[in-house]
Amino acid sequence: MKLYESKLAPNARRVRIFLAEKGMSVPMVDMDLARLDQKTAAFSVLNPFQTVPVLELDDGEIISESAAICRYFEELRPEPPLFGIGALERARVEMWHRRLELQLFFPITQAYRHTHPAAKVLEPQQIPDWAELNRGRALRAMTHVDEALRERPFIAGDGFSIADILGLVALDFIRPARITIPENLVNLRRWRETLAARPSALA
Amino acid sequence: MKLYESKLAPNARRVRIFLAEKGMSVPMVDMDLARLDQKTAAFSVLNPFQTVPVLELDDGEIISESAAICRYFEELRPEPPLFGIGALERARVEMWHRRLELQLFFPITQAYRHTHPAAKVLEPQQIPDWAELNRGRALRAMTHVDEALRERPFIAGDGFSIADILGLVALDFIRPARITIPENLVNLRRWRETLAARPSALA
Repeated sequence: MKLYESKLAPNARRVRIFLAEKGMSVPMVDMDLARLDQKTAAFSVLNPFQTVPVLELDDGEIISESAAICRYFEELRPEPPLFGIGALERARVEMWHRRLELQLFFPITQAYRHTHPAAKVLEPQQIPDWAELNRGRALRAMTHVDEALRERPFIAGDGFSIADILGLVALDFIRPARITIPENLVNLRRWRETLAARPSALA
Repeated sequence: MKLYESKLAPNARRVRIFLAEKGMSVPMVDMDLARLDQKTAAFSVLNPFQTVPVLELDDGEIISESAAICRYFEELRPEPPLFGIGALERARVEMWHRRLELQLFFPITQAYRHTHPAAKVLEPQQIPDWAELNRGRALRAMTHVDEALRERPFIAGDGFSIADILGLVALDFIRPARITIPENLVNLRRWRETLAARPSALA
């Protein structure tokens, strides 16, 4: 198999950290998204939605979407479990993975894409009002995440999960989105530091 | 357990159709989102993110996010499987569920929320340019989904899945978003008709 990814794309980093936590490695093809490698005719045949990352299996089948790729790896190598064990834990991980995605990560990416000069190649029609709305949403989400982390080490409970991976990826992307973590969110800051100290954070 | 949901919210309908396909029923509390029931102090204690649907378990634990709630029901009652069977099928279902969510459903909801007068209560700062950008995205996604459906009955393969449920919910929401399915997308139209003819579509 082969993973089409990009060193600068946060969605690609989700998969790289996941693989590092599993102790797995997969041959990778680095795409230059600023050069619009993902919009070439050749890549559009692989993934008409022109998103990265994409996993190409040995028989040519394509799996796109970082969460789908991670879920596939989870099935291939169940240890350590990163989607939770049992009905309730899996539901908690899925809930937090989606809350972080929709309420924190997505708003941060929008704040970046709709204001940063370097993002204009990805988002030709930037809408500053939309970026501003999303800055506010990201900050509100941070407050709720901070509160949730008050009495537990990881976002979905006592164990590290794919939701924590997304949390780190999201918080490491706030600088180009011109967002800072408010000083008083001490639980959020502690969480980020704990996650950033794991060897997988270098992936 | 108890499901807080709303008759008019597409995210709540995803769970209702899922339950109907499983032949399950759960006590429901109908929320009036136009009256902002989801923003009351009492509901914010249940779900600080103020989204619907929310599943309250008998011990008081809360599961929010429609996909997390559905996954929990899938574990409680595995038949019929709606997330796929085996590593590859599960990855395909997850991929299409996310592609439809991010590329079709989300743009449709944005086109609605940022233009429709009735949505102003949910989205006080409507941004018409953002709505327009998303209309274009929804139409492009429809083209890709139509192409994917050319040689198979359901979006993730031969079997009906949670991704199809989201497809129906998304396409049933295009009218308030002022989007129409182009005449030439015959596979997409056939798919929608097939899904709308299932008894679960009434949920």
